[in-house]
Amino acid sequence: MTHAAHAYAKQHSDRFLEDLKHLIRIPSISTMPKHADDVRKAANWIRDEMEKIGMETAELIDMPEGRHPLVFGTWMGAGPDAPTVLVYCHYDVQPAELEDGWDTEPFEPTVKGDILYARGATDSKVNVITQLRAIESILATPEKSPVNIKFILEGEEESGSETINAFVAKHRDRLTADVSVISDGPIIAPDQPSMVIGLRGIIGMEIHVQGPVRDLHSGHFGGNVHNPVQAITEILAQLHDENGTVTVPGFYDDLIPVSAAEREAIAGADKYYEENWHKTAGAPKVWGEAGYTIQEKAGIRPTLELNGIWGGYSGPGVKTVLPAKAGAKITCRLVPDQDPTKIFEAIQKHILNLAPDTIKVEMFMQDMGAPAIRIPHDSKAAQTANQAYFNHWGKQAVMEVAGGSVPITSTFATVTDEVVLMGYSHKGGLAHGPNENIYLSMFDKGIGTAIDFLLLYGQS
Amino acid sequence: MTHAAHAYAKQHSDRFLEDLKHLIRIPSISTMPKHADDVRKAANWIRDEMEKIGMETAELIDMPEGRHPLVFGTWMGAGPDAPTVLVYCHYDVQPAELEDGWDTEPFEPTVKGDILYARGATDSKVNVITQLRAIESILATPEKSPVNIKFILEGEEESGSETINAFVAKHRDRLTADVSVISDGPIIAPDQPSMVIGLRGIIGMEIHVQGPVRDLHSGHFGGNVHNPVQAITEILAQLHDENGTVTVPGFYDDLIPVSAAEREAIAGADKYYEENWHKTAGAPKVWGEAGYTIQEKAGIRPTLELNGIWGGYSGPGVKTVLPAKAGAKITCRLVPDQDPTKIFEAIQKHILNLAPDTIKVEMFMQDMGAPAIRIPHDSKAAQTANQAYFNHWGKQAVMEVAGGSVPITSTFATVTDEVVLMGYSHKGGLAHGPNENIYLSMFDKGIGTAIDFLLLYGQS
Repeated sequence: MTHAAHAYAKQHSDRFLEDLKHLIRIPSISTMPKHADDVRKAANWIRDEMEKIGMETAELIDMPEGRHPLVFGTWMGAGPDAPTVLVYCHYDVQPAELEDGWDTEPFEPTVKGDILYARGATDSKVNVITQLRAIESILATPEKSPVNIKFILEGEEESGSETINAFVAKHRDRLTADVSVISDGPIIAPDQPSMVIGLRGIIGMEIHVQGPVRDLHSGHFGGNVHNPVQAITEILAQLHDENGTVTVPGFYDDLIPVSAAEREAIAGADKYYEENWHKTAGAPKVWGEAGYTIQEKAGIRPTLELNGIWGGYSGPGVKTVLPAKAGAKITCRLVPDQDPTKIFEAIQKHILNLAPDTIKVEMFMQDMGAPAIRIPHDSKAAQTANQAYFNHWGKQAVMEVAGGSVPITSTFATVTDEVVLMGYSHKGGLAHGPNENIYLSMFDKGIGTAIDFLLLYGQS
Repeated sequence: MTHAAHAYAKQHSDRFLEDLKHLIRIPSISTMPKHADDVRKAANWIRDEMEKIGMETAELIDMPEGRHPLVFGTWMGAGPDAPTVLVYCHYDVQPAELEDGWDTEPFEPTVKGDILYARGATDSKVNVITQLRAIESILATPEKSPVNIKFILEGEEESGSETINAFVAKHRDRLTADVSVISDGPIIAPDQPSMVIGLRGIIGMEIHVQGPVRDLHSGHFGGNVHNPVQAITEILAQLHDENGTVTVPGFYDDLIPVSAAEREAIAGADKYYEENWHKTAGAPKVWGEAGYTIQEKAGIRPTLELNGIWGGYSGPGVKTVLPAKAGAKITCRLVPDQDPTKIFEAIQKHILNLAPDTIKVEMFMQDMGAPAIRIPHDSKAAQTANQAYFNHWGKQAVMEVAGGSVPITSTFATVTDEVVLMGYSHKGGLAHGPNENIYLSMFDKGIGTAIDFLLLYGQS
């Protein structure tokens, strides 16, 4: 492609990278109330940039107190007969602290060789900047864009997407488009684009266990009080069998069987999943249900994961306490056709059944739930995306079922004719963990791909 | 008793209480390196007071770097033919933070009615001040003391007593005495003195579990990586059977059977243990091994207690992390004739056997171990203590086997002819937990009792 937008993008490449660094430095952690101002700061910056690059409208959409704003911009200059593309990104990030195991300050982008390290680099600020600067590059050309553009960003992807889901439900007309481009999630390898045809759903919950009414001296009461830390381990240890299968009654009831043809279709991605497992996870041994590949264990099978556990004393030295309380965070990754609420209720019921009468147990569903989805891979959007990736990577995309969740995908599937996922980070990018990173050599290719998707979608 | 020392103590009662508050305000937390200066500050204050009240020697004894000083004072004015009493206290305390569940600042003594709340009130600064001011009251009289007095205090009771154990081993001659008075631990009820004839031993350890080499995205890896939080629950849940009995092979091998006569001897304390359980623990139901009373479960049976557990994310909101690590703190309360090191090794071996090859497990023995002890209750010291308590409480002491550990007791049993435990706090005092407290109405009685013990021991 030799469109003038590419020349513009190349010319402004250094500035685009500085923009990415600027956005990363704003710790827009949506799950932590103390960072609410940072989330808003990131939103305002994006809104201002939309205005600067020539979007016709650019606004912050506020929702009830305690929620984070949407950013929504439009450019409808291609006219009513041209197709309309709705681009989605999120500008919020997961929490990160240096002591979690980072080698560098998580909110100070640090470049070592071809790699930039920072919280949000992969998930998902690279996508925000890529889409923003692709649109800028097209609107900067004399021809402008062959498609109308709606660009919506949320600040709560990491904490449940409540605001955008409510907005979409109420304002379907404002979002009408031919295609939604969900710009989140990685490609399978830095040199291999990929097309996600399945995403897992998610539901989050907490379990709280109370034993005695207060922390006790483990000498005076050890032996006659059921220790809640012990009790929570006794409960949680019963949630998987020795094969790694979840033991909650009903957990697998609503699974749609995966056909041999579907498993064949994604087998081309297996080697990337295996390589990435050894490089990124590096655990002593692969774990999980027998009879499934590494990709399938994370893609077509649901999970019950303990994201955190706490109780008693964890500081230095010995504290001979018999704690009053213990707790744990659980998320389940879901596959078609599991219902998030129904899964929560099944787990809650099972855990309350397991709880002995020497302790009290409470379960809380957290503000985060989405069903799994499957995306058709023979649509116009998918074919266009594949061509755009090919133009810049020189390779056809492989198909995969991703283990992560992009809950908004199913929401947008209800308001546009088709949906496609186009991400510009890579799978080894350590999203949500320490030393999250992107390859700088992918950055310009990503902007080129995003430009081409808009141009090609307007041609066909 | 109408000895002039009692009149002196009564006259200075208000000042003595202010001394207790002053000492409490120094957060002498021996397990936390950042409080090392506070521990030393408390030691210096006690040493200076020893000098002021007329002890002939008063010194700080330093040990290698990173350890906390002993305070050692002597008054040998009763002459070589008089008996010598060695009094032991500890001036260090457990950690405490307001957010652990305290109603008041833990290091600001707060009086509500007859109760004073503060970390260290019960365990064990009330004993430090009681002994210090009892000695002052006697030395302030014209007759001085009928017994020679050695007064030794350590600042590491809550973190392993390494320093005092090393000192005793090297300087037995300096500590020679007829009787050791271990002034630590509570009496059974504010209005009922008690004599401890058994104490449990203790050994502390940590278990560390590592799964992947770094925190991972629970979408990308959930299902093919063994979650270390899940793994640690699966291991820890296997350490007790459904009856509460410890399943570690060999754990009960060295137990000396408790005779029916011994169980009969302590049965008089049962009602206090039951009352205190309901008042202080307040758990939904009594737990533990069948066939034992509440007192016996905590006194004559050993335990394996989880003092703390950690892993992954425990902050607000959802974090979809598959953590790299998890850990837990364990202490065992031991009974005769369990050996602390042997018990650690048995647990370590069992846990390493339980660990699957999908994770790595390490065990660390912590710097804290002491065997259990039994104390003769028909000795001169015990009879003298009983009479001293009777003089001020108007009741004979009941016998009990205490569940806590006072490791130094067995150390002193090797350097003096006899040992006795005399504490001046009460069992509901919430040692080690939030809202630790003492009854002010016990304070003067305690000083009176401590005075009488010294006077009576000199008469007989």
